Amino acid sequence: MTRQARVHRLSMRGPDDVAPLAAAIAAGRVVPGAIVAILGKTEGNGCVNDFTRAFAVASLRAALAPHLAPAALGGVAMVMSGGTEGALAPHMLVLEAIETDAPPGAMPALAIGAVRTPALAAADLGGPRQIAMVADGVAAAMAAAGIADPADVHFVQIKCPLLTSARIAAARAAGESVATTDTLKSMGLSRGASALGVAVALGEVERARAAAARIGGDVDLWSARASTSAGVELDDHEIVVLGMSAAWSGPLAVDHAVMTDQIDVAPVAAALRRLGFSASSPIPTGERDRLVALLAKAEAGTSGRLRDRRHTMLEDSDLSSTRHARAFVAGALAGLVGHAEIFVSGGAEHQGPDGGGPVALIARRDTP
Amino acid sequence: MTRQARVHRLSMRGPDDVAPLAAAIAAGRVVPGAIVAILGKTEGNGCVNDFTRAFAVASLRAALAPHLAPAALGGVAMVMSGGTEGALAPHMLVLEAIETDAPPGAMPALAIGAVRTPALAAADLGGPRQIAMVADGVAAAMAAAGIADPADVHFVQIKCPLLTSARIAAARAAGESVATTDTLKSMGLSRGASALGVAVALGEVERARAAAARIGGDVDLWSARASTSAGVELDDHEIVVLGMSAAWSGPLAVDHAVMTDQIDVAPVAAALRRLGFSASSPIPTGERDRLVALLAKAEAGTSGRLRDRRHTMLEDSDLSSTRHARAFVAGALAGLVGHAEIFVSGGAEHQGPDGGGPVALIARRDTP
Amino acid sequence: MTRQARVHRLSMRGPDDVAPLAAAIAAGRVVPGAIVAILGKTEGNGCVNDFTRAFAVASLRAALAPHLAPAALGGVAMVMSGGTEGALAPHMLVLEAIETDAPPGAMPALAIGAVRTPALAAADLGGPRQIAMVADGVAAAMAAAGIADPADVHFVQIKCPLLTSARIAAARAAGESVATTDTLKSMGLSRGASALGVAVALGEVERARAAAARIGGDVDLWSARASTSAGVELDDHEIVVLGMSAAWSGPLAVDHAVMTDQIDVAPVAAALRRLGFSASSPIPTGERDRLVALLAKAEAGTSGRLRDRRHTMLEDSDLSSTRHARAFVAGALAGLVGHAEIFVSGGAEHQGPDGGGPVALIARRDTP
Amino acid sequence: MTRQARVHRLSMRGPDDVAPLAAAIAAGRVVPGAIVAILGKTEGNGCVNDFTRAFAVASLRAALAPHLAPAALGGVAMVMSGGTEGALAPHMLVLEAIETDAPPGAMPALAIGAVRTPALAAADLGGPRQIAMVADGVAAAMAAAGIADPADVHFVQIKCPLLTSARIAAARAAGESVATTDTLKSMGLSRGASALGVAVALGEVERARAAAARIGGDVDLWSARASTSAGVELDDHEIVVLGMSAAWSGPLAVDHAVMTDQIDVAPVAAALRRLGFSASSPIPTGERDRLVALLAKAEAGTSGRLRDRRHTMLEDSDLSSTRHARAFVAGALAGLVGHAEIFVSGGAEHQGPDGGGPVALIARRDTP
Repeated sequence: MTRQARVHRLSMRGPDDVAPLAAAIAAGRVVPGAIVAILGKTEGNGCVNDFTRAFAVASLRAALAPHLAPAALGGVAMVMSGGTEGALAPHMLVLEAIETDAPPGAMPALAIGAVRTPALAAADLGGPRQIAMVADGVAAAMAAAGIADPADVHFVQIKCPLLTSARIAAARAAGESVATTDTLKSMGLSRGASALGVAVALGEVERARAAAARIGGDVDLWSARASTSAGVELDDHEIVVLGMSAAWSGPLAVDHAVMTDQIDVAPVAAALRRLGFSASSPIPTGERDRLVALLAKAEAGTSGRLRDRRHTMLEDSDLSSTRHARAFVAGALAGLVGHAEIFVSGGAEHQGPDGGGPVALIARRDTP
Repeated sequence: MTRQARVHRLSMRGPDDVAPLAAAIAAGRVVPGAIVAILGKTEGNGCVNDFTRAFAVASLRAALAPHLAPAALGGVAMVMSGGTEGALAPHMLVLEAIETDAPPGAMPALAIGAVRTPALAAADLGGPRQIAMVADGVAAAMAAAGIADPADVHFVQIKCPLLTSARIAAARAAGESVATTDTLKSMGLSRGASALGVAVALGEVERARAAAARIGGDVDLWSARASTSAGVELDDHEIVVLGMSAAWSGPLAVDHAVMTDQIDVAPVAAALRRLGFSASSPIPTGERDRLVALLAKAEAGTSGRLRDRRHTMLEDSDLSSTRHARAFVAGALAGLVGHAEIFVSGGAEHQGPDGGGPVALIARRDTP
Repeated sequence: MTRQARVHRLSMRGPDDVAPLAAAIAAGRVVPGAIVAILGKTEGNGCVNDFTRAFAVASLRAALAPHLAPAALGGVAMVMSGGTEGALAPHMLVLEAIETDAPPGAMPALAIGAVRTPALAAADLGGPRQIAMVADGVAAAMAAAGIADPADVHFVQIKCPLLTSARIAAARAAGESVATTDTLKSMGLSRGASALGVAVALGEVERARAAAARIGGDVDLWSARASTSAGVELDDHEIVVLGMSAAWSGPLAVDHAVMTDQIDVAPVAAALRRLGFSASSPIPTGERDRLVALLAKAEAGTSGRLRDRRHTMLEDSDLSSTRHARAFVAGALAGLVGHAEIFVSGGAEHQGPDGGGPVALIARRDTP
Repeated sequence: MTRQARVHRLSMRGPDDVAPLAAAIAAGRVVPGAIVAILGKTEGNGCVNDFTRAFAVASLRAALAPHLAPAALGGVAMVMSGGTEGALAPHMLVLEAIETDAPPGAMPALAIGAVRTPALAAADLGGPRQIAMVADGVAAAMAAAGIADPADVHFVQIKCPLLTSARIAAARAAGESVATTDTLKSMGLSRGASALGVAVALGEVERARAAAARIGGDVDLWSARASTSAGVELDDHEIVVLGMSAAWSGPLAVDHAVMTDQIDVAPVAAALRRLGFSASSPIPTGERDRLVALLAKAEAGTSGRLRDRRHTMLEDSDLSSTRHARAFVAGALAGLVGHAEIFVSGGAEHQGPDGGGPVALIARRDTP
């Protein structure tokens, strides 16, 4: 009797396109009660006024409501990441954990766990309390996944809150201060603090050092496995842990890589080889289906340069640097894996080195 | 006594940054009288209201004015392409043709030629007369480059005009009609007609068929070697031909590839191997400097899909699809060549197959 | 026994903010079964990829579902208009028609009627069939409102469909052609054809002349009372007629004005005086509450000029001209009425003269 | 023997359109040596990567270079303000000071003075040193204008620097810190500190209090006569003072008003009446030409609300709030004065009350 993770990648025709999920449930391919988390790339701007994330979540909740009791529905993590720049394909990843009679496998398999934290006070956004709250949440998600050793964790996907004008006004009315009054900037602070929370939980950064960090400033403090995304549609955190565990069975495996800059695809290629893919680039067509999901972070970085040449992402007042970075990094990764239905999320503060970011790969292993 | 092409890639700190060019002239590395053309990627939006192109041209003219007589200055083609999305690095390519005592080489070398066409009437933009005007211009530029066989042409870079509200109003006041009153759309029509002009000149599409084409609609008519870019700063065409000729000498060579979609980098990798680069991807660091320039076209295509997955470039009313496509294709190509100081131009109507585009590579050959 | 129209203006904190409506229903101020139509300004870009409209509609349907049978719910017109540029305040107007024992009033009162048309084929968008379909729909809505004389109609608000990449591809696959492949441009064609449908129904333009019109081109053909708005969230038309009728009672009245350009506020001021407001500008604070709703159309026009000075709305490739126009016209009107919770909708093709647009004013009359 | 101010408002067809100025010089209407300052509205985004300002300045310098010695040319203040949202018309205001034989008038007349400050260190941007530097500059400009009493100053237009990625990197390399690493935010800090510098110089805010202010935060500290605009094209400040002085003669007069929010046009109407215009709104057509120039500041404010209704300017990640505010406020003011060739500049930190801003009006008085 073990748990087995299943991952379904479903294309979306719009933020509210739950038809593929409904069809999968109707056909028995997806069991509502087994859904642990749904990750989605939706086609908004990925910034403050991106309502496609909330629209997707509302649509998913409405689609699942007939199948799940309210408490169970509330327990499904829904991490929508806005922004499908370039040819990024809107899609969702439905993560299931099913009970199986299979004995534990000879080798570890993909394990998943998800939790929600308590609501974050606006005054705590971007500060030590957010870091601590997330670190606790990651530990709880690891426990839910049955992963004890942080070394077995390959990716932590988090949806975190941001500050809106209304939240800022409410905090002020209550006599509290906020870290920034710039709503777009609050997204970066929330992402950064959440990433440091992951780093603390995984032992990558000491708790005290994280608590003292200048969020967004101390770029040498980072997690190799955090991917955080802010959204207006929640005021707590949704945390999904992906790792490998001998207590789980099945054909899926996860590995990760760290890109040191926006075009550093070699570590990703190496991770693909570790997962059994051929060394050639791009991945041969025949192997392409074995790659179930790719999740990556993208950012402009703070230097204004890529390999000592200037870029303009940080100076563009028409177009957020996160949008630039998603499109560009998506191109580099799609060139490697052969399609663009990949999960590239923008804003990698404290997620990988400055200008780079973590990448997770979920693959189906060949049966031995 | 032969001609020899030289290509200088100069980084730019802004649209008006002519300091690197001035320094190269002062140091004798660039001879003003030998400059045939200057191609530049400037950091505007690449669309109608992109004044960085004109600002760069004005700055270049002011920088060269002390060195060249007005007629000679007017003869220098200046093809600025706006849009440095993602990590694309603003830069210019200064193309020189110097006379040399060297005997013709054992093998052909890079040859360049440039011309300007007459001014295009607003009523002719996007129609058969523009196609014919460009075809004639390409033939003239080939002659200037000393290239007789169209097969020896590897790239034709063109700057073409667009329609502004003022030009549309003037045409109407003169009782003429225009192909579109949408200024952004006029860029696509001008790029498409110019590309078909190249296709006619190079024998890729029959003249009559090109004249009857629906510009932007008949996507099966295309040139494998055209790269066209529209701008508000001119009302004629600037045409630069790049090819190989036994009448030219020197270490530089040019080759080209055609991407069939936005991430089809394999043909580019093959062209790099033909130019003597290693088969590995990305290009090894030690070989990177041998690649002098990469010029490519990028577009969303008309299908709304990449490899059967939906993308959102054509539905995004905030961000022109040309901006999406430049960033994304630049990522794929930068992942291959190892940096992003490359010339990726948006809007590939009739330039390569639908969704794809031509790519030119200028490399320094190893001395034998 | 007469009908009485009620209009509730409810502020919205987001596209899915149905709390004020729910509160009004709970308090008995709004009777779900009496709702004829809900008009809303939502905070998306108002262009193709504006999902705030559909999100609002989905949220409204979910909020009303417990109160109405499916057929009744389907009969409530929901016309969401995206785009709250400048200081425009997101809000909804809930239009009710209640039965009352009151005898017909001494004077006519606000009358409302709403219908949905059949679905429009993609191939018919922007053509004579769309015009005819809308003309028939307006006649049906007038009948529903009990208005026989077109002169008693003061405003016709329509939500019409647009072309997406998917709809275009489907039409092509079916061997049909579409009026444009530019998704943003399809919005203008749909708005324009719908407006001509209103003009036909109201006797402002002859049916044959409308059928032969170049949509968006023949700017001298227009309705003084049409307001049309395109959205991705429907494939039919939702039509709401506002007029005056002696068969209706109550304190509300509607009147309209036509602005000849973006700052022509004098006709609006005149209409306000006809509705009993003071002649001073802006409206005195004490009278402000009597103005229940202002609905207006805004557009850049085709000339590129306002009162013989150039504007740049048509050349801006970063920002749709509809967004420019909404913000600017909203400023002019807000300056007149003293606040910005007004319904300004962009894209006024065939709605008022070129560059101008119709304005409707709903006011509470002083009790005699 | 007195000085006389002349103000020429010249429409521009593009950022580099100096033809109207050249024509005015050729016709003797403008005397190059008498030009004190040129203010311009150019059609970029008005944010960090707006190169239309620098393009205009370069074009103006090239146009004036044949007429002025380098030192004299360097002494002409050129204050370009980017952003012509809505129907704002790109234009320039050429301010001349000519010597005249006329005796001092019976009443004061428009007086102008301009200076440039030293270059501002990146580390000082947004802090007390910038405030002090500007305060000193305003005092010098007042002296240049012959204005001793701050009460006679009606407007101070300033162009101030911003932080680019390169400037930030250079400061860091030199071991210095900067107030922000967000380039767009640096514009607001620079505008705010410059405005406080004006407030100090005019006695509106005490020097110590200004030095201790949180720039952008202490919104109750403001100048009623400052208008500041940041740009990438300079690293010092260009300061132009407009006031009334008995030492100047001629028909021109200046007055100012303070709008308390984005649609508070009543104080502007009152100022127009003080300048001799009719009380009616909008200004009668026949009086329109007497209004030579209108200069105003616009901003979203920090509350997220206008007259207690929510607006979305601060949440829009696609479109800077400065662009929203310029379009909206321009609509309100154009509705009052009857055209949109007015100088509305975005970002009013410490310029007027939160959400509002100062307005200057230059008018030609009727001859007595």
